[in-house]
Amino acid sequence: MKIEEIGEFGLIGKMAAKLPPRSNNVIKGIGDDTAVLRHEQGHSLLMTTDMLVEDVHFSLKYGTYHSAGWKALAVSVSDIAAMGGTPTCAVVALAVPPGGLVGEIEELYAGIGDCSREYGVDIVGGDTVKSTGGLYVNVTLLGTVEPDKVIYRSGAAPGDVIMVTGNLGHSAAGLYALSNSIDSTAGQLAGQVSHSHLYPAARLKEGQALGRSSLATSMNDISDGLASEIVEICEASDTGCELYSDKVPFSETTARVADKAGVDPVEWALYGGEDFELVFTVRPQNVEQVKAVLSQTGCCPAVVGTILPKVKGCSLIKNGSSFALKPRGYNHFRD
Amino acid sequence: MKIEEIGEFGLIGKMAAKLPPRSNNVIKGIGDDTAVLRHEQGHSLLMTTDMLVEDVHFSLKYGTYHSAGWKALAVSVSDIAAMGGTPTCAVVALAVPPGGLVGEIEELYAGIGDCSREYGVDIVGGDTVKSTGGLYVNVTLLGTVEPDKVIYRSGAAPGDVIMVTGNLGHSAAGLYALSNSIDSTAGQLAGQVSHSHLYPAARLKEGQALGRSSLATSMNDISDGLASEIVEICEASDTGCELYSDKVPFSETTARVADKAGVDPVEWALYGGEDFELVFTVRPQNVEQVKAVLSQTGCCPAVVGTILPKVKGCSLIKNGSSFALKPRGYNHFRD
Repeated sequence: MKIEEIGEFGLIGKMAAKLPPRSNNVIKGIGDDTAVLRHEQGHSLLMTTDMLVEDVHFSLKYGTYHSAGWKALAVSVSDIAAMGGTPTCAVVALAVPPGGLVGEIEELYAGIGDCSREYGVDIVGGDTVKSTGGLYVNVTLLGTVEPDKVIYRSGAAPGDVIMVTGNLGHSAAGLYALSNSIDSTAGQLAGQVSHSHLYPAARLKEGQALGRSSLATSMNDISDGLASEIVEICEASDTGCELYSDKVPFSETTARVADKAGVDPVEWALYGGEDFELVFTVRPQNVEQVKAVLSQTGCCPAVVGTILPKVKGCSLIKNGSSFALKPRGYNHFRD
Repeated sequence: MKIEEIGEFGLIGKMAAKLPPRSNNVIKGIGDDTAVLRHEQGHSLLMTTDMLVEDVHFSLKYGTYHSAGWKALAVSVSDIAAMGGTPTCAVVALAVPPGGLVGEIEELYAGIGDCSREYGVDIVGGDTVKSTGGLYVNVTLLGTVEPDKVIYRSGAAPGDVIMVTGNLGHSAAGLYALSNSIDSTAGQLAGQVSHSHLYPAARLKEGQALGRSSLATSMNDISDGLASEIVEICEASDTGCELYSDKVPFSETTARVADKAGVDPVEWALYGGEDFELVFTVRPQNVEQVKAVLSQTGCCPAVVGTILPKVKGCSLIKNGSSFALKPRGYNHFRD
């Protein structure tokens, strides 16, 4: 059986089945944004790893070594944010093609360094080896969280309101702008969304504020598109959901680039991925309180759907009709 | 400037220079077998990462997915061993070529699982992405250690005795046997050393026993050959050394395969790498006590040299003559 046939997520279950049972040190192993481990009194340890591959996750044609370095760390910070945690330290493993220049790797590290400064991460070690193909960057990041403040994917319940921390689709818009010629009028537009694509920001303050508040019942970061991430929450929580297409937020800039591309910006928001906003669920009576909590971080969250009983499945409500919600965000081995 | 010109170790300094200053949470950052981090009362946290690349670190022509999985974790366990620590949990990131089979990745995970069982490691998460080249396996492993029992590279002093935990050169002999036709008489020999190459064992009990004893002044695991590793200890400790060529231990099997290959087995021991024995230093008056401590783990350590003042440099004593000791073990970007 080819991996393409079962996809990244089908593969995870098969890999986990080959491992011995976990010890008591592991609070949450495979199957959330990060692992959760027993740590010092009053804190759990979070651990997450992300492999970024040249021409899959980043391009040195559109982007730079600096932006690749930034992104390699930022995507892991986003995972810690999605647990309500605080990142602490990271190790970086690189596989570098033969003939690589010292200045290129210095630029990559300058990007990692700038991102580490932004989010308060210590880079404490790494490994640098020879690649037989392109550049591969693997970051493993640790974080801490109070055990009773962790926000798992699995806590959503029917009736909960689905919210996102901000506009979606800008990363896909940026990728479109970077990989297509855009005329000079649109040049400035392209610059804005391109920056979102190359230098994604993790919603760290927002994830932490939600963690401290104990108001979010589940949370995921949007790395693979809203559709894929909310379906993950529903699967982990044993629920269904409905998303309201007309409530999915996107920026005016994304709308204008989408117009030039001839696509519906909601498509980019649902399936584009790499926006690194947070999707989370709250009890309906707590929505206003959550908005107040997040407004202190400068964030304007949007309500985009409702958690339903599992039997209802996952659907998208668009122009008054209901469609099955396909978790078809970016999926390695399928796209 | 090309990376080949300054090598892996020259690059590390340039990368570190691009990072912000480390926080108080970091006891030891870049520059030892693992990072050492402040942790719960009475323990420090160790963290190490290793990237293994198909056709650089492992071959699916000679080896299997199972042996690649075993090795990917074992090399990180060896780093924890070299600090005197206990491994706890790991995350695994894979980049898999298009067209990969589910059964192959299951076999890889069976190898990781068997190794994790052997050394008591929880596999707590990972990432699986599409490779544009061969298979890439990155393991990041955590461990714990009592802060006053950590053995750094930097503690050697002139007069200290240099010891190793066991025979060297068997991994290079195994690689030779795997990549060359060996006649049937030698088939059994080849089997023994090939297994050492494909399924390296980490000297975990030995590293821990040395840590508990507080008798080792410095330690490194032998991933890149004895010559390279002892020079690393000398650089970190600001010392020189001399290694005695005729004291470097190797097995009868390694000697016989070396004879077939027409090479001196000491060359394999010094420069072959991937034996994953430990090299460490002790005060001369403690050598017998160290032997007694290690004998309880079934290990017969050998004295192979002496730490000298820095002005003496690093040399190899062979047939009564002294040669400059070149740290020319395996070095990415140079070999």
